[in-house]
Amino acid sequence: MARVAVVGATGYAGAELIRILAGHPGVDLRLITSRQYAGVPIDSVYPAFHKRVDLVCEAYDADRVCREADVVFTALPHQLPMGIIPDLIRNGKRVIDLSADFRFRDQERYEAFYQPHTAPDLLAKAVYGLSEWYREQVRSARLIGNPGCYPTSILLPLLPLLKAGLIESRGIIADSKSGVSGAGRSASIGSLYCEVAESFKAYKVGNHRHNPEIDEVLSLSAGVDIHVTFIPHLLPMSRGMLSTIYATVRSGIDEQAVRDCLEAAYRDCSFIRILGPKKQPDTRCVRGTNFCDIGCYLDEKQRRLVLTSAIDNLVKGASGQAVQNMNLMLGYAETMGLDAVAYPL
Amino acid sequence: MARVAVVGATGYAGAELIRILAGHPGVDLRLITSRQYAGVPIDSVYPAFHKRVDLVCEAYDADRVCREADVVFTALPHQLPMGIIPDLIRNGKRVIDLSADFRFRDQERYEAFYQPHTAPDLLAKAVYGLSEWYREQVRSARLIGNPGCYPTSILLPLLPLLKAGLIESRGIIADSKSGVSGAGRSASIGSLYCEVAESFKAYKVGNHRHNPEIDEVLSLSAGVDIHVTFIPHLLPMSRGMLSTIYATVRSGIDEQAVRDCLEAAYRDCSFIRILGPKKQPDTRCVRGTNFCDIGCYLDEKQRRLVLTSAIDNLVKGASGQAVQNMNLMLGYAETMGLDAVAYPL
Amino acid sequence: MARVAVVGATGYAGAELIRILAGHPGVDLRLITSRQYAGVPIDSVYPAFHKRVDLVCEAYDADRVCREADVVFTALPHQLPMGIIPDLIRNGKRVIDLSADFRFRDQERYEAFYQPHTAPDLLAKAVYGLSEWYREQVRSARLIGNPGCYPTSILLPLLPLLKAGLIESRGIIADSKSGVSGAGRSASIGSLYCEVAESFKAYKVGNHRHNPEIDEVLSLSAGVDIHVTFIPHLLPMSRGMLSTIYATVRSGIDEQAVRDCLEAAYRDCSFIRILGPKKQPDTRCVRGTNFCDIGCYLDEKQRRLVLTSAIDNLVKGASGQAVQNMNLMLGYAETMGLDAVAYPL
Amino acid sequence: MARVAVVGATGYAGAELIRILAGHPGVDLRLITSRQYAGVPIDSVYPAFHKRVDLVCEAYDADRVCREADVVFTALPHQLPMGIIPDLIRNGKRVIDLSADFRFRDQERYEAFYQPHTAPDLLAKAVYGLSEWYREQVRSARLIGNPGCYPTSILLPLLPLLKAGLIESRGIIADSKSGVSGAGRSASIGSLYCEVAESFKAYKVGNHRHNPEIDEVLSLSAGVDIHVTFIPHLLPMSRGMLSTIYATVRSGIDEQAVRDCLEAAYRDCSFIRILGPKKQPDTRCVRGTNFCDIGCYLDEKQRRLVLTSAIDNLVKGASGQAVQNMNLMLGYAETMGLDAVAYPL
Repeated sequence: MARVAVVGATGYAGAELIRILAGHPGVDLRLITSRQYAGVPIDSVYPAFHKRVDLVCEAYDADRVCREADVVFTALPHQLPMGIIPDLIRNGKRVIDLSADFRFRDQERYEAFYQPHTAPDLLAKAVYGLSEWYREQVRSARLIGNPGCYPTSILLPLLPLLKAGLIESRGIIADSKSGVSGAGRSASIGSLYCEVAESFKAYKVGNHRHNPEIDEVLSLSAGVDIHVTFIPHLLPMSRGMLSTIYATVRSGIDEQAVRDCLEAAYRDCSFIRILGPKKQPDTRCVRGTNFCDIGCYLDEKQRRLVLTSAIDNLVKGASGQAVQNMNLMLGYAETMGLDAVAYPL
Repeated sequence: MARVAVVGATGYAGAELIRILAGHPGVDLRLITSRQYAGVPIDSVYPAFHKRVDLVCEAYDADRVCREADVVFTALPHQLPMGIIPDLIRNGKRVIDLSADFRFRDQERYEAFYQPHTAPDLLAKAVYGLSEWYREQVRSARLIGNPGCYPTSILLPLLPLLKAGLIESRGIIADSKSGVSGAGRSASIGSLYCEVAESFKAYKVGNHRHNPEIDEVLSLSAGVDIHVTFIPHLLPMSRGMLSTIYATVRSGIDEQAVRDCLEAAYRDCSFIRILGPKKQPDTRCVRGTNFCDIGCYLDEKQRRLVLTSAIDNLVKGASGQAVQNMNLMLGYAETMGLDAVAYPL
Repeated sequence: MARVAVVGATGYAGAELIRILAGHPGVDLRLITSRQYAGVPIDSVYPAFHKRVDLVCEAYDADRVCREADVVFTALPHQLPMGIIPDLIRNGKRVIDLSADFRFRDQERYEAFYQPHTAPDLLAKAVYGLSEWYREQVRSARLIGNPGCYPTSILLPLLPLLKAGLIESRGIIADSKSGVSGAGRSASIGSLYCEVAESFKAYKVGNHRHNPEIDEVLSLSAGVDIHVTFIPHLLPMSRGMLSTIYATVRSGIDEQAVRDCLEAAYRDCSFIRILGPKKQPDTRCVRGTNFCDIGCYLDEKQRRLVLTSAIDNLVKGASGQAVQNMNLMLGYAETMGLDAVAYPL
Repeated sequence: MARVAVVGATGYAGAELIRILAGHPGVDLRLITSRQYAGVPIDSVYPAFHKRVDLVCEAYDADRVCREADVVFTALPHQLPMGIIPDLIRNGKRVIDLSADFRFRDQERYEAFYQPHTAPDLLAKAVYGLSEWYREQVRSARLIGNPGCYPTSILLPLLPLLKAGLIESRGIIADSKSGVSGAGRSASIGSLYCEVAESFKAYKVGNHRHNPEIDEVLSLSAGVDIHVTFIPHLLPMSRGMLSTIYATVRSGIDEQAVRDCLEAAYRDCSFIRILGPKKQPDTRCVRGTNFCDIGCYLDEKQRRLVLTSAIDNLVKGASGQAVQNMNLMLGYAETMGLDAVAYPL
């Protein structure tokens, strides 16, 4: 049994971590921390946990975390993790960070879109936790920069096709739509029920910080500089993310070749489901699960490939993938604790 | 491993049975039937099951069901089950029926609100599957009449107080609110998204068929004739049911006495959570689970007790309680396969 | 054309006032104020107003308000209005206050549930703006205490029956359900989309401040002390309120007598629609309108009358009724600017 | 006052026509027809109309329609209108058809995607009712083929830029998202609340019948053959449509040039609102109105223009634009009866 701590337990990603870890047969969840709710039982913050999770939020105390846990999940706002993680690493802990602080290889890129990095030496040691693509590095990593939700939904369908040279690296577009939980649990007017219901709109057009993350991973993988036109939209629902991705197929490539490539790439990946012809993924079918469902369609008149991918932004897009990475690091079965089925409705 | 069949697998209750049974460690789900979708893989009807449930719907064939299964769940519209269950019982099967056909002890009452009963001899043998109250009878039963969702949410808070004589048997009101899934998966205009969203209303006022079911169970339990004023309402959400129940406490009874009585009654019941003072149940906190959360408040000026109970209408109100009953019948732990935690959001 | 100002224009009630007043043919909306958004065009705060309402929020300046407006709507949090209204009244303005500050006749009752009152002399002069019941007083009033949303939905069905002696004054219950907009536009976690969607619960049980307001008006009208057991619930939708009210009919009274009484009471009231037998009001059918739809049903076994009333909490429950009161004060047709039809879906 | 009939009054577009026409100062709505609800008062089908619209649905009778009405709106499923419209036209009626039957100039294209056309001679006489672009033809037309909702949302932002040569005609993508009301009021499982809530997905990918409509109008306008890659998605909300359109700007064109072109094209168009830099349209801000809000953004690294347009699919996307066309045909002010403001929330 791995001894585990969740630092930043009361945001949505933290709560989802607790939900998953509480039912994980290889985990002893010993410690959860929260600045805002220190001293408060977690089932007062999230009554869903009543009689299921019997933990009290604590103020963060590095010594105590190091004493109690071997694996530490940090689910804090950007900038905070880089202040506490170096210490945890020095103490031999395995750390899975859900913020952007350790997602970038390129310090400058991080600093251009976030802020000065105070632990740049760790950037090189951190592994980008897109589990299906960095599985071996994750297994031996001490520090995981867990991917953003949008990047996860966009990279999973694109990477096999780019690597195999089936699509052009130029002109890729990602039209993505996210449920409101992506904005977190902070009390902001834009996330109020009355502002979101019966509303749909694009937001942060041209300046969403997941764009450089997507670009970096694609560029590193393809070996050429890639820039994706990325347009995020806000959906009137709690959880779920769908990315509709447009790319140009190389001459001679048909829809079946694309599907074959995707299926081959993910043959041994339990969480990736490649849908058959004329089938489209639905966010509801991955809700609460670690699945990424992928559909594809080729508009032959334009040689335009349309990839669609659905994830739960809080699971495969955050906490579920974080646990998947923990499973890899600990030598557990990759699906351990992650075998939930989505509700049929 | 119990060999199990679900008859009527593609309605919402049937699909929810499949979801729960597919993850149940003591169940081998061998057979699912559907008139409408015979020959169709269940993951074509409910894509959420893709790569998780690998079964094809079959037309109902009594011989085949009897050969393949020891326990049969029937999730069919009222009137159909009484046509097929006698045969199953004769063949030694254990049957859990989710319709109203075997919920009543009083044949006349059933026939007044439904239709002529064609298997009246089984009414006396059937056990009303309100698990917490008929646990011993359920254990040895061959046929369970699984309770309706509204009755479950209303009976669980009321029964202990009526039995203990803390409340008057006259003048009880149940103001209940249900998510849309209670209407099932049939294509009716009233259940369309555009008819339900941003809508709230009472429906079937004065003629909902769960009213006689509630009245019968309360009357039998209390030993006096009880009639509840029951007003169901339709909520703009998929799952979840909350009943706000008004009763008059006997003289001298305070809120704490009520709470003590509820806690004592359900001390050993894993699925009943009695909330503390000033806490109110929320349907979201029981979503997808077999919990019934109960709150209470006494308006002392009127000696009016206000009980609130939240369930997931498809789980504790239907398929979850059905599996709980199966667990009891098979001598399994009562919570087996039913230990899900609700999503924190 | 009446010159009108809205003080507190950027909360939900303020915005709804602007929407209604901007289309009102007898109104010249000259001035809107907002502490938080002073200097900001209202169509930046509410883009729905783009090219329809061309006003800029101003900081509150009593002199300027007095100079520019003859009628002032105050849509501020409780306690603020009593600080500014005395000055407006002294300057001869007509004031319609949407807060609770001038709803009570009984200063002690106000202070028991809110805070010390700093303008108690105005309490006696203020008229409770339940338009259909205080029409004559409203016509000549200088200051209106505009009713709360819950009281409006509960008083309208009850008052005719209490006055006519058709129901008992004891034992009344109001089980009310409100959309989220009732909580206003403040950024609180409880009003976040992810906290409200697929959630339903009772809240502020036993201590909601609309309870004393309801009790005061009923008691004054009936001439006896009345206490209603009032249980508010939160609906997963933006707008709309439904109250299900339980009362005991006097001996010999049947459902038709109740309906006749309601119809007689509201014969000349354009905004009250009494529904026929077996019909139930739906919040969707009053959305965006000033209607109050009322249904009734008698459970004869218990002599229990069930009244259901639906309003839009922001219109008849706040800003629409405020404009209705303005119409009365100015001698306009009562329905002027308030003749919208709800969307059919 | 124009005498008006609505044929097919009980679908969502028909109901929305009634809502708008009932408040239109230049219209005398004399007659509504419905096969399914003949003899039923419209306020029984849509209780929102209670005490506002006092009409009874009738079976369709050509003579009666010709006697009673000068302007006829047909809101029927495709294929039915071409059976009845020739007769209406012969009788000198002005007809606005909301189906696809008269949207195409090219009979073959229509027949390839719908069915054989039985009134092909009228195709040449019908005017495509995209009001802002065919205003003069609409004014003198006898028969309007009212545009589809998706085409309206896609053509309005694209046409000015294509005509002005600011964007390439090749490689255009429209990623569109629609509320559920677009599927109409027929009872289909896919439109049930429980199937749509917390769900988002693409649908009819590669075979939506609005694609040839879009292509035809663009091709005719630009004088070259244009094919748009069009991917429709289903939003978990009732009304509203947002299209995110991707095109390549010609060399040297910047974002401001695009915005200037849009503003110039729509300078005198009351219903088109071009948003400023960094602003994005929101479906909520056009809900219930005839507005089309348009935003634009240029991703300069790729010379990729991103246009976003929001409409209410039932208003500007159907019934509102139909009334706008009627206004033009009758010489009324174009905005008559269409000046609603969206609810601020």
